[in-house]
Formats: sequence, structure tokens, C-alpha cells
Amino acid sequence: MTIGIDIGGTNTDMGLVNEQGVIVRRSSIPTNNYTDMDTYITDLMGALRQMCEAEGLDGVSLSDGIEGIGIGAPNGNYYTGCVDNAPNLTIKGVLDFGKAIARYSDVPVVLSNDANAAAYGEYIYGGAKRMRHFIMFTLGTGVGSGIVVDGKLVHGSTGGAGELGHNILIPGGRPCSCGRSGCLETYTSARGIVQTYKECCREAGVTAANEMSSREIGDLANSGDPIATETWNRVGNWLGIAMANAVTFSAPEAIFLMGGPVKVGEPLMKPLRASFERNLLNIYKGSCRIMLSQLPANEVAILGAAALGHLK
Amino acid sequence: MTIGIDIGGTNTDMGLVNEQGVIVRRSSIPTNNYTDMDTYITDLMGALRQMCEAEGLDGVSLSDGIEGIGIGAPNGNYYTGCVDNAPNLTIKGVLDFGKAIARYSDVPVVLSNDANAAAYGEYIYGGAKRMRHFIMFTLGTGVGSGIVVDGKLVHGSTGGAGELGHNILIPGGRPCSCGRSGCLETYTSARGIVQTYKECCREAGVTAANEMSSREIGDLANSGDPIATETWNRVGNWLGIAMANAVTFSAPEAIFLMGGPVKVGEPLMKPLRASFERNLLNIYKGSCRIMLSQLPANEVAILGAAALGHLK
Repeated sequence: MTIGIDIGGTNTDMGLVNEQGVIVRRSSIPTNNYTDMDTYITDLMGALRQMCEAEGLDGVSLSDGIEGIGIGAPNGNYYTGCVDNAPNLTIKGVLDFGKAIARYSDVPVVLSNDANAAAYGEYIYGGAKRMRHFIMFTLGTGVGSGIVVDGKLVHGSTGGAGELGHNILIPGGRPCSCGRSGCLETYTSARGIVQTYKECCREAGVTAANEMSSREIGDLANSGDPIATETWNRVGNWLGIAMANAVTFSAPEAIFLMGGPVKVGEPLMKPLRASFERNLLNIYKGSCRIMLSQLPANEVAILGAAALGHLK
Repeated sequence: MTIGIDIGGTNTDMGLVNEQGVIVRRSSIPTNNYTDMDTYITDLMGALRQMCEAEGLDGVSLSDGIEGIGIGAPNGNYYTGCVDNAPNLTIKGVLDFGKAIARYSDVPVVLSNDANAAAYGEYIYGGAKRMRHFIMFTLGTGVGSGIVVDGKLVHGSTGGAGELGHNILIPGGRPCSCGRSGCLETYTSARGIVQTYKECCREAGVTAANEMSSREIGDLANSGDPIATETWNRVGNWLGIAMANAVTFSAPEAIFLMGGPVKVGEPLMKPLRASFERNLLNIYKGSCRIMLSQLPANEVAILGAAALGHLK
């Protein structure tokens, strides 16, 4: 069994996961209650111990059959085992999870960012089993990605590889929170979708409703609204170019997609597939599929983290 | 020792390379004299045998101390050992080099495309020794690339990975020979540079000289010509964006650059470095250098191919 820990700004969710990819126990502590790393780790390890004991184990150790602890965290660095100054965490600074947990447990700890964890979860437990080359795009507040090449997660020389949300899609395009402009994220994140909807309303001479969410824009498109449909057409077109570009890098078998905005379904997927086909270099035609993540949305964070536990 | 064979449309150049990366013997046959694969292979193997005998070896075999034969070829596929319908070769169809050479020699044959060979040559013999993550861009008639991740050349699921010259840099941009538009190649290949020069002339209200080559435009820039300087400023800017984008994929330690247009020097390198810095996502600042290939231009093709011989 492995343990998966998903560190979010609000909650830290954790689960005990068996070899079949079933979360047999879950627990949670409120991340934003903590400003001190030591207290946080003490409580985290207490919650893990309780979880293991509830499953009939003596504790959180290799001798209890726990093979790895995987952690998915914003700004999580695989090489250092640290979370580096994540802006959305109330515990500040460089947080050395590898070292902190080693004081409580002999189980090896593997840490990476959430999108890498999602990709690895798909590889170990989901739709990417037996795939040697694939890419995961996660759409949400931002756009993240995780890349598997030759069956291995790509971390690069710094641990920061796989930030395709910050690939510049349109030079000189929309301003991005990263300080640059034209990043994929500014076009296909939840916020980017809302911005596109506003642009489409303006072009159509319609006053947009107060502040629509990407989910509401999705509902509108599914009920046949032409402005919302045009919005998703544009989002799908942009994402298709970005995915076709990603193929020129690693020639993956599949590109997976997950996250809130993906739930809209065909209003996104139809223009996305069309754009991908149109923008794919001919030598890759027919070699790469676009697929939806095959892990349940409420389990993917824990399963992804638990999958990282297999890396050591 | 390994043997490196570079198959070009005009000539097939080959060399015997020792462990220090020195080409101890060279030979060549005219590729475009052949339309038949069997005759071509017979002559190629004859030339290899002569080359080995001149070096005091009995022939082209493992027992003679030849560890690998590497082949760099347009459209060369690593997985199949075949050259797939290369448009610039007079020998047509799918050419199975692995199988053809096996009839003459027990030395393992590794084949890949020329840009991958160049990258691997840099890794084994050049400036990328001991680098686990780097990318090579080759500028010439087209723009090629080779990518090393975790010390391994990325071939992807099809063998066709690493075609960053066909990354779409500007959606809806210049038409490309691949049938799409906006590919990096249309902006930074020799032909793209010439096109940019013409655009710069037009904007300046100057009639361009008949048909300048990218080399002549380089000479002009180095003699202070403002239109040529502006041309290279734009080329450097585009290439810097493409390189910054490539970093979001694999977070390499270095990006190498080689090929004819690179010889211009500072008129390209200065705006390239500035653009790369400006367009690099902040988490990568200071982690990736732009470097020139450290292999001699007249040796890189054979050395790259010979490096592939180390792969088996």
C-alpha cells in the first residue's frame, strides 16, 4: 500500500491506497489552520497514524506494509522534497517535507507538483497504464501539465519541468499572472474562459451577465447558447494548437485532459479535436489520441499523490 | 570505436571514430548516384570495409572492435531502423538500413534523424557531456531539434519526437512547407531569415538586392547594415520565444544551437539571449544557458551518427 497526500491551500487530504488503486481509508486536516511547519507535520503524521491504525496496521512504517508516501503540492519539487514558497499556503518559506516526515517514519517520501501527480496517477491507476509516452493537461484556476517520457515523469534539471500552461501560445497576447503575456493559461484556464466569454459577448453586442463562471458558461453552451458555444470553440481551438505543439516535443501516444472546465464535454471536446487534427504535423497523424482522465474527480488528487509513492 | 554514417541527398559521408571523439578515417560515396537500395548498400559496405582495413582492421565486425554503426538520415526512424520516404533521396520507399546492413556485418546499427544525431553527438563528444537534460536546435534549410531527457534521446511513441521546428510559434502566421502555418521553421530557417530581410527592406522602403542568402544577410549585419541588423533582431526574438517555450517542457540545463545561420554570431546571439531572458518563465531564470555547439561544423554529422552507435 502507499499513502497519498494532497496539500491544498484549504485542506490537506490523505488516503491509504492499495495496489488496485482503491482508496481504502481517507482523512483530512485543514492546511490553512497552520502557520508553523512543525505543528502541521505533527498533526499530519497523527492523522496518518490514525488512518493506518483504523486499517489494522501498527503505524506508518515499511514494516506495516506502507511502501511509499507520495505528496502532491503546489510548487512541490521532486529533487529537493521541498515545497518552495507556495503563494497559497499559510505556512511560509521553503518547507522540507522529506526531512520533516523522516523524523516520524522510515517510509520513503516522494513529492512533486499537483499536475505531475495527476499525470502519474493516470499512469499507475488510470487510463495511461502501459503507455510509455503521454502528457496530462489539467485545466482549473491555472493550467498545469505533467509529462511522461519513456515511462518516467519528466522533472528536468530543476524539478520544474512540465509547465505547459506557461507555454507562450500567442506572442504579445493576453497578460498572464506570471508577468509575461500570451501564455496558454490566459486562454484556457477557468479565468481565461470567462474572459473569452466576455469578449464574445462584446463582439456580439450583448451585455454579459454580472460574473459568469466557466461552469455556467459550460451550462449555457450545452443548452445551445450561441455566444457560449463560440466561447468554447475558441478555447478548444487554442488548446488544440497547444496540444499539437506538445506532440512535436515527445510524440506521445495520448494527451489526457482533466479539471473543472473539461466537464462541459462536447462544446469543448468537439472544437478541440478538430483543432488538434488541423494543427498536428502530418508525421504524427493518427498516432496520438486526446483522452479524458479516467480517474474519478474526487479521487484523482489522492491517487496521483499515492502513485508518486511508487517512484521510490 | 564506432562508425558514423551521415546520409545526405548528395553524399553519404562516413567515418571511423575513436573513444576520444576523433574521426580517425573518413570516406564518402555519392548518394544521388543510386536508385537501388541493394547496390547502394553493397557500395556503402565496401567503403566501410576499405576504411576499416586502412586502419589495420580485418573488417567491419564486433571482433574488429567496432561497437556500433550509427546512421543519421533525413526521416530516419530509431525504432524501425528505416528511412521512411525521404523526399530528398534518389533511392525511394521505406529503406530498412538495419536489416540491409545486418546481411554484411554483426555490428548493431542505430538510426535516427540528423538533428537527433547532432544532439547525441553533442552529448557524447561535445559541450553537453554529463548533461542529463538539454535540447539542440539545428538551423539550416529547415529547423530541426533533438531532445535529451534524463540522459536519453527522446524518440517518443513513434520515433518522430523532437520536431520543434514545426512548433507553431505564431498561430495563423507564415505558410510552412509542411502545409500548416506559423511554424518556427518559417521564421528561423535560412529561407525564413531571407523572407524577414525582404520584409524589413519593404518596411524601410528599400528595394532588396536580387536574392540574398542568409549568409550574406549575416555579413551585412556584421558590417553594421541597419536593415540586416533589424532582420537578425527579429529572428533572435522569435527563436528566443521558441527556446523559452521549450524550457517549459523539459527544464533543460542548456539549449544548444548549430547550423549555417548561427555563424553570423552576435547579430543573432544578442537579441536571442535578450528574448530568451525576457520570455523565460520566472521559475527557470538562471537555470538554462544558451550555448553554441562545440563540435566542428565539418565533423558534427559524422560525430553525431557515430554517437548513435553508442546507443546499442
